[in-house]
Amino acid sequence: MALIVQKYGGTSVGTIEKIGKVADKVCAQAKAGDKIVVAVSAMSGETNRLVALADEMSSKTHHREMDVIVSTGEQVTIALLTMALLDRGCDARSYTGSQIKMLTDSAHGKARIREIQGEGMLADLEAGKVVVVAGFQGVDEHGNITTLGRGGSDTTAVAIAAALKADECQIYTDVDGVYTTDPRIEPRARKLDRITFEEMLEMASLGSKILQIRSVAFAGKFNVPLRVLSSFKEGSGTLIALEDDGVEQALISGIAFNRDEAQLTITGVPDQPGVASKILGPVTEANIEIDMIVQNIGADGCTDFTFTVHRNDFAVAHELLQKTSEELGAKQVVGDDEIVKISLVGVGMRSHAGIANTMFQTLANESINIRMISTSEIKISVVVDEKYLELGVRSLHEAFGLHSDGEAKNLR
Amino acid sequence: MALIVQKYGGTSVGTIEKIGKVADKVCAQAKAGDKIVVAVSAMSGETNRLVALADEMSSKTHHREMDVIVSTGEQVTIALLTMALLDRGCDARSYTGSQIKMLTDSAHGKARIREIQGEGMLADLEAGKVVVVAGFQGVDEHGNITTLGRGGSDTTAVAIAAALKADECQIYTDVDGVYTTDPRIEPRARKLDRITFEEMLEMASLGSKILQIRSVAFAGKFNVPLRVLSSFKEGSGTLIALEDDGVEQALISGIAFNRDEAQLTITGVPDQPGVASKILGPVTEANIEIDMIVQNIGADGCTDFTFTVHRNDFAVAHELLQKTSEELGAKQVVGDDEIVKISLVGVGMRSHAGIANTMFQTLANESINIRMISTSEIKISVVVDEKYLELGVRSLHEAFGLHSDGEAKNLR
Repeated sequence: MALIVQKYGGTSVGTIEKIGKVADKVCAQAKAGDKIVVAVSAMSGETNRLVALADEMSSKTHHREMDVIVSTGEQVTIALLTMALLDRGCDARSYTGSQIKMLTDSAHGKARIREIQGEGMLADLEAGKVVVVAGFQGVDEHGNITTLGRGGSDTTAVAIAAALKADECQIYTDVDGVYTTDPRIEPRARKLDRITFEEMLEMASLGSKILQIRSVAFAGKFNVPLRVLSSFKEGSGTLIALEDDGVEQALISGIAFNRDEAQLTITGVPDQPGVASKILGPVTEANIEIDMIVQNIGADGCTDFTFTVHRNDFAVAHELLQKTSEELGAKQVVGDDEIVKISLVGVGMRSHAGIANTMFQTLANESINIRMISTSEIKISVVVDEKYLELGVRSLHEAFGLHSDGEAKNLR
Repeated sequence: MALIVQKYGGTSVGTIEKIGKVADKVCAQAKAGDKIVVAVSAMSGETNRLVALADEMSSKTHHREMDVIVSTGEQVTIALLTMALLDRGCDARSYTGSQIKMLTDSAHGKARIREIQGEGMLADLEAGKVVVVAGFQGVDEHGNITTLGRGGSDTTAVAIAAALKADECQIYTDVDGVYTTDPRIEPRARKLDRITFEEMLEMASLGSKILQIRSVAFAGKFNVPLRVLSSFKEGSGTLIALEDDGVEQALISGIAFNRDEAQLTITGVPDQPGVASKILGPVTEANIEIDMIVQNIGADGCTDFTFTVHRNDFAVAHELLQKTSEELGAKQVVGDDEIVKISLVGVGMRSHAGIANTMFQTLANESINIRMISTSEIKISVVVDEKYLELGVRSLHEAFGLHSDGEAKNLR
């Protein structure tokens, strides 16, 4: 008998029929003896409908009132799902973020959870009830309705799981787990049974858009075992948890990539303390997020400085950098928005040398030129021309034994 | 500078454009210096959409969850209206029933208001804010969302007006006031400037469906001056208030009627104590509401007993009465569902004799047979054949000087 927190996203509760199927699933598990809390999103399309209504009403952004209107989306779902559970003879009770006392700060539209009072939920669970909670929403200390921003329902589920010290937090979505890489690029990609929080964080931030980074970080911080599962297919999904010393670990868990990057280089910058912040300052002040940063010290007292930004921000960043270049007396600014980032991710890197070299050699064998390299403890990222994305991912997938029939090569 | 509570119904906030017009109106009044609380309904059609979703989900009635889902309708409106007010430079803040602490009992779907904590609203009003409140909804002592049932938004407005001791509670609707009778029956019907709570209660319960009885009773109990106005037309509407001794009062305020009635008579009932409850008991136990009741004592130790019910309940009531008739050894049961009730309403009746006689004489002049008579302190109701409805209403409207050009006749 376990205490499980489950989260169903918008597509999983997108129609009355789908909500019925979720109720079937929850009911079966509850009757098998598990204690279940379910966090749900708005029915798919509903949040967009509400935002469109608000946009039609006002061209300005009224953050507090926007939260009042969009939070109704999840409120509708909790009532419908609870009705469906009751119809199936499964005792249940719905709660809005305010009713569950999901206390957040007052940053409307992107609020952060401060505290959850779990007593009410525990009492309901003890009494044999399934607890149905509106995801994505909370309440600040003054009683104002807040929302947690994109991916907020995942965070709701993880936060509840942490507060209740649940055995597992299950995120039901439209994929059946985390894969070694995107199966659309490499059909032999393999579903992972298990991955660490850190690896998932790197995978997520690098473009595997299954879980919001924030909810994974949250789960890692409170050590809440997180499982990604399909709402529509049977299977045990992928468990995201702490490193498990007991079993053989893979060297590399997966290959992530990001198509949305653009690269900017400023060359021949007179090297002096503070030059990095002089270059990046104007860019970050323009609210442009910077991803990779690489700087080489040159021989002649000058340096080349390269960084990547989101492709949408390329033009603006380029212009800002041109101005900075003139101010600093740099040589020139070169940019390219037809580049991609490919990353190897794996906690095995920590204890195994030679992985970087294998990566570089593999790409070289395919005549793929590496334009930029950046490493962290559990990942190596390279920037290459966009046209090499598929070839790069596939050759690395093969080289590190990630194919569904190639496990043997990839053990440490 | 007055403190005004306004209520806008579903048709008044039925579209983004209409909400904009409400905002224009509220804003102008707020800028003129009035302190304003606005209670709103769901956009017209929205409550039906939500109920349909719930009905599609479940064929059973889950009262608590139904309130969770339908209360989102008003929540959307308060956010939209508040956005519109802010856009117009009018400081405003929205509140759900739960946020305003509209404490009710736990009778989901038909909850009754117990208490309103007005401090927060008063603080907002003092700070120059318009307070926008979701009508129709409240919260019980356990934090469950409740709804007040049909016409609940009127009740919300009146309850807030009572709690804040507002100068006036204005109900904006799609008619421009209370008329002496239905203008569709008598085109010369006149809009009343003023009417008493008691008269309005009789008018409302008799079929003038402008205001819910409950909100009028509530306003009368707490002496909240209530004004019915049009959202779409300029004008001062009709004020519903206590009797005003200072001005000349009309004898008769209006003529109400009800087409939805059916009449049932049980004749030759052996007259003995408790016979009325024996006759009506089975009918009320079947949840059938009884309207008029008339009993005559007969000469031969027998009595005739007549009552009216809603036309929809006629068949069931007839059947029940047949059974009772056999048990009591009565003579027979006769029924008619092609009858209507016409009522004269006016506080002037209290002090003026002869009104009943004028009524009966007027109907007799038109050869309209009266089938049943019932009187109270401020009304006289008669039941006549349905075919005489229009003729009866028009001849009484003329006889009591209610025509727009006939005021002189109708003063006491």
